[in-house]
Amino acid sequence: MSAAASAQAGAQFGVAGMGVMGAALALNIADHGFRVTAWDRHPERIDEMHQKHGHPELKGTASMEEFVSRLERPRRILLMVTAGAAVDQMLERLFPLLSPGDVIMDAGNSWFLDTRRREELCKSKGLHFLGVGVSGGEEGARHGPSIMPGGPTEAYALVRPVLEAIAARTDEGLCVTHVGPDGAGHFVKMVHNGIEYADMQLLAETYDVLRRGLGLSAEGVADLFAQWNQGIAESFLLETSIKVLRKKDAETGKPLVDLVLDKAGQKGTGKWTVQVALDLGVPVPSIASALDARNLSSMKDQRVAASHKLKGPSEALSSEEKAQLAAWAHDALYAARVVTYAQGMRLIQAASDEYKWNISLAEMARIWRGGCIIRAKLLTPLREAFTRQPELPNLLVSDAFAPVLEKLSPSWRKLVGAATKLGIPVPVFSSSLAYLDSYRSPELPQNLTQAQRDAFGAHTYQRRDKPDAGFVHSDWNS
Amino acid sequence: MSAAASAQAGAQFGVAGMGVMGAALALNIADHGFRVTAWDRHPERIDEMHQKHGHPELKGTASMEEFVSRLERPRRILLMVTAGAAVDQMLERLFPLLSPGDVIMDAGNSWFLDTRRREELCKSKGLHFLGVGVSGGEEGARHGPSIMPGGPTEAYALVRPVLEAIAARTDEGLCVTHVGPDGAGHFVKMVHNGIEYADMQLLAETYDVLRRGLGLSAEGVADLFAQWNQGIAESFLLETSIKVLRKKDAETGKPLVDLVLDKAGQKGTGKWTVQVALDLGVPVPSIASALDARNLSSMKDQRVAASHKLKGPSEALSSEEKAQLAAWAHDALYAARVVTYAQGMRLIQAASDEYKWNISLAEMARIWRGGCIIRAKLLTPLREAFTRQPELPNLLVSDAFAPVLEKLSPSWRKLVGAATKLGIPVPVFSSSLAYLDSYRSPELPQNLTQAQRDAFGAHTYQRRDKPDAGFVHSDWNS
Repeated sequence: MSAAASAQAGAQFGVAGMGVMGAALALNIADHGFRVTAWDRHPERIDEMHQKHGHPELKGTASMEEFVSRLERPRRILLMVTAGAAVDQMLERLFPLLSPGDVIMDAGNSWFLDTRRREELCKSKGLHFLGVGVSGGEEGARHGPSIMPGGPTEAYALVRPVLEAIAARTDEGLCVTHVGPDGAGHFVKMVHNGIEYADMQLLAETYDVLRRGLGLSAEGVADLFAQWNQGIAESFLLETSIKVLRKKDAETGKPLVDLVLDKAGQKGTGKWTVQVALDLGVPVPSIASALDARNLSSMKDQRVAASHKLKGPSEALSSEEKAQLAAWAHDALYAARVVTYAQGMRLIQAASDEYKWNISLAEMARIWRGGCIIRAKLLTPLREAFTRQPELPNLLVSDAFAPVLEKLSPSWRKLVGAATKLGIPVPVFSSSLAYLDSYRSPELPQNLTQAQRDAFGAHTYQRRDKPDAGFVHSDWNS
Repeated sequence: MSAAASAQAGAQFGVAGMGVMGAALALNIADHGFRVTAWDRHPERIDEMHQKHGHPELKGTASMEEFVSRLERPRRILLMVTAGAAVDQMLERLFPLLSPGDVIMDAGNSWFLDTRRREELCKSKGLHFLGVGVSGGEEGARHGPSIMPGGPTEAYALVRPVLEAIAARTDEGLCVTHVGPDGAGHFVKMVHNGIEYADMQLLAETYDVLRRGLGLSAEGVADLFAQWNQGIAESFLLETSIKVLRKKDAETGKPLVDLVLDKAGQKGTGKWTVQVALDLGVPVPSIASALDARNLSSMKDQRVAASHKLKGPSEALSSEEKAQLAAWAHDALYAARVVTYAQGMRLIQAASDEYKWNISLAEMARIWRGGCIIRAKLLTPLREAFTRQPELPNLLVSDAFAPVLEKLSPSWRKLVGAATKLGIPVPVFSSSLAYLDSYRSPELPQNLTQAQRDAFGAHTYQRRDKPDAGFVHSDWNS
């Protein structure tokens, strides 16, 4: 046994996986006075961690046996490995080494149905399993993330002191709470990421409209964003946009963002959000169109080729439109963001109903208020709305937001109208507006759709004038 | 053995499942001179079929053993049962009764990965399996559907004479062809249905804009649609809309469509289309937003409640806008439909590449030209476009459609602008336009997105000015 290991008998917490996020979380935990043991399958990563972050309470090893044997019982082990097969492999390696009552936390972006399965598997071996969503990137993990743990209450009680010590704090409390049973934490983290996709795409569309519509430079957009970030639109992603837009390339002196290729990647949680929303019958068009926008961005070569065949409009904005465009964009950004969060909250509620998770939407808004990527000022009134009306069918009709949407929508419509005229794609602005307009329409034209379905497929329909008659069929040919 | 059975030794084709579609297909096959045996687990359905459709070449039985024993070998059996577990149950019942070389066709709307699995299973038992998409509703099944068979070439050869006899015919040929191996037929049928969702929603949005924007009656919209159906927009669904809009309620004399509740149902293929498109990374926003529109329509109670909280705009159209609205709608309908078919074709191509199906898009356009629900005049130039340019990356840039889109888009933009101003949701019109505008944009704002991802998550980015440098990371804080 190495000196480092023997010096660390009685570690209180184990972190497996010393990638960027794992190392940051381990340091954060050690900073709060817990004796932490770390593991990675690459010994060089352990060495690097010791050299880079040397911390008296944090010792690493590349031996899984040593890692486990150092831990006090019940052992508390957090896995930060790539979601998917690697998590199952880790569990198989750990099972023979652990003792009943030990707790395993999976802090990656795992698919929530995998988490359900893994919790069952661990339970059958007398072990606790928690699926723990962690948001905030490296910076959050190091100094205070938002943490979304799901799993058995008794297991959460065993790790709660550590998670509460490291979580972000806001005026509204600690950014961690027990989300619910089994897959609830990973589900909420997944939806968090889905909202993140939509929110980032709204910022991209805003930036595009301001640049193409007004001819603003990156710095000019940053100046506007900086003004907005003083008001209701304040958010981490808006703040990040400002930083990004102001960053200069060391070599050329140009705004670095102008040198970044316009192809956005993705890692899967956004896609899952849309797919599971379809299974649950919950429309999330803002998230779906944000995902499509990333996919379309990645087809750069096709786009460049298409631009020669499809020129698009040669319209320009009037000087009056130009004078108002930035104000419209501000209002549209806030209103569309509200609609995006509303869709995400509806999706969490639907899953909570389906899987009997009993998730508090108010609490989710509270723990997202700090530490995470989608933290934003609007989460405070959003939390209050769900606190006051926990049974709210949709955030859009809350007393807090309905009047705001009424007030800001005229600008939002103007923005979509201007972009449509100019040929600037605003998929999330327009799909979010269509969602709002559909949701507030007492009458929609799906009577025609349903009548067509009955006409060619005998799918039947209900009559407005005979609500008790049930589903009927007509011969539409006669 | 009953008299009917003994009278029918040497049946040439078997149909299992005497629901609406199964009975119609069986009759269609019998009409073409094949001796058909039919099976259903409900003896009363068999009796009903005999009484209702009495046909000398069609005899039913509720005994699976009798059904199979009547058939000449190699047996040709078409299953028309509910997609899902029922298909697997049928296979298990059939396996002990069949002989090597027999062919089973699944003509339901099965998930294509199930079809792949079932073909493997059948192969292991020496049997052939074909996944056969059938479109056209009861009318098509009875008098000429569009048929999309997928599976082994040698199995298709055994059933080809029957499928060719019953398929719809157009000037462009028979509406059946061997789509490709294993799940190819069911995949193509699924995408057909996805396009159908989007096309129906475009008609619903058009109807809504014309009614709310111009105050037209159902009959008034029908008159306009009837004009349009003489031109480029001609399609089965447009024709069906006209019929539906003209139908009067026998009791009240009112247009029946006005009495139909505005809640549209769905049966799953649209949802699968969007989910698998996400897996393949192919944007299909027109189909996704059509699906969302159906889901939103079904939330009738919530919508009615929300309408009291969210009033929306009180704008009206100018008389000039009113004068042009119908013309805009016509152009928008055609252009958006092109974009919808373009997305569907891209999805089929992506799946064909992924699964090595070698599907001919031109052939798909040809077999959709008659019999099926999405048959439309535009399929002729669409077929020609893919015949001339089989490697076309996207229909939008074809020589046939790019100029048409350029010509019609200004009207389309006006329509979206007018609807946006009035607060009438046009999710498929606007998402399709965003797709077009994204696809033809050489520059999109995802440089900001990717820079943000690098700033908070170290996800790296590529530089425009250094294409060979690969993925790089920057510190965006300094």
